[in-house]
Amino acid sequence: MPPSDRIRDHAGQGATTVAAHRARRRLRADQARQLADLLRHQILTGGFTDDTLPHESTLATDYRASRNTVRLALDLLRAEGLVDRLPGVGTVVVAQKYPHGLDRLMGLAETLHEHGTVTNEVRTMGPAPAPAPVAERLQVTPGTDVLYIERLRRLNGLPLSLDLTYIPLDIGTALLGADLENTDVFRLLETITGQRLGHAEITLEAVNADTHSAAVLEAPRGAAVLMLERLTHLADGRPVDLEFIRFRGDRITMSGLLHRSL
Amino acid sequence: MPPSDRIRDHAGQGATTVAAHRARRRLRADQARQLADLLRHQILTGGFTDDTLPHESTLATDYRASRNTVRLALDLLRAEGLVDRLPGVGTVVVAQKYPHGLDRLMGLAETLHEHGTVTNEVRTMGPAPAPAPVAERLQVTPGTDVLYIERLRRLNGLPLSLDLTYIPLDIGTALLGADLENTDVFRLLETITGQRLGHAEITLEAVNADTHSAAVLEAPRGAAVLMLERLTHLADGRPVDLEFIRFRGDRITMSGLLHRSL
Repeated sequence: MPPSDRIRDHAGQGATTVAAHRARRRLRADQARQLADLLRHQILTGGFTDDTLPHESTLATDYRASRNTVRLALDLLRAEGLVDRLPGVGTVVVAQKYPHGLDRLMGLAETLHEHGTVTNEVRTMGPAPAPAPVAERLQVTPGTDVLYIERLRRLNGLPLSLDLTYIPLDIGTALLGADLENTDVFRLLETITGQRLGHAEITLEAVNADTHSAAVLEAPRGAAVLMLERLTHLADGRPVDLEFIRFRGDRITMSGLLHRSL
Repeated sequence: MPPSDRIRDHAGQGATTVAAHRARRRLRADQARQLADLLRHQILTGGFTDDTLPHESTLATDYRASRNTVRLALDLLRAEGLVDRLPGVGTVVVAQKYPHGLDRLMGLAETLHEHGTVTNEVRTMGPAPAPAPVAERLQVTPGTDVLYIERLRRLNGLPLSLDLTYIPLDIGTALLGADLENTDVFRLLETITGQRLGHAEITLEAVNADTHSAAVLEAPRGAAVLMLERLTHLADGRPVDLEFIRFRGDRITMSGLLHRSL
């Protein structure tokens, strides 16, 4: 065998070993993710008695996984802030995510009423000239004043979302004196207009929070945020409420039902 | 004035200056976020001609914002990977987010057919004993085999999502020989069972990608991921497809219509 072939051969063997090592590591990571997703579901739906996860060895048996995979899966859930390991107790659920309905158009206090009290810190409120994209969507003349509101919303005192809201001024003026700290804008809009809300176009995205938004939400820098853009119309079709909402990803889930046929 | 009071007085003034400085910085950051959200909507809906944003001074005039605020807003959008600054050209849109329908139950290729071709890299596929939470939701006996599939899904070659799928084996077996690389599981399920799909329970969350998932999706570590858990039923009600899907947050939006009354 010529020397060059021997070298190639050795290199090949080295590559195989590295490849095999990588494959094992990849397999372990894949299995950990798979297990973490199953545990995540149980965590979010309150499936563990006393919010305590079974012992690692029990999980390993139940899920036919190695102890190593179980530990990696728990590490993933801990990194997400869903569980924590308490010495002498085991792995406990530490985060609660609240389910925001995705089937019906509802305000935050309305959709979370079973889970506690929503309070709103009004950070900014007042008339401001509508920029073109706001004017267009709210069907007002660009540059005319609309009501701009910025609220930090809390559930049982914990920051949940940061909401930026634009409302046509003829309706918005009546909001200026309203109890925005304790009432959903949706409810106030229905009271003011004497009309039910009709529908809303929504868009959901996952984004990393910028430094300032993260600070306001008391979340780590770069934390995943569920971003909701929503244009809400009255029952008669008039658009009355344009919102940009950043939900803390670790505190909210959106749940709903989809049908195959419309 | 006794010395202690003078000191206190100075400290007080210092605090006021710091507070005023903080307030200004907070205001600027709030205004930048507000502007960024408006620009984001236009970016996502293709509202800028040639995918190029107007000059900073034009944006400043249009949005009655300071140049400083405009720059901060563009920084936020750049940090999210939505725009980039090209010397001599200006600020251009560099990311495209694809709209996933949230109104009807649809497979990925189906919902994105206008935007290009979906291909699926099957990373893992085979029968595996159903863990209790999977068995319960798919209504099979715990420990009986279900088909497990792991796919990396791409649109026009770009990684879009990582899907973990569980399917009862009586249906799953027929999937083993199917063209999973080019066909939605939804479509295959309807072909195999000779039945339309009926409905699905979905849950959406925003999470930070773990290191391994980020690597598979070719996204930065900690990137925001839109996580979709979906249990799909046949038209006759039988649950046939449990999925855990991680969408790259910078490539997918979910859009739909909500109604106030059901």
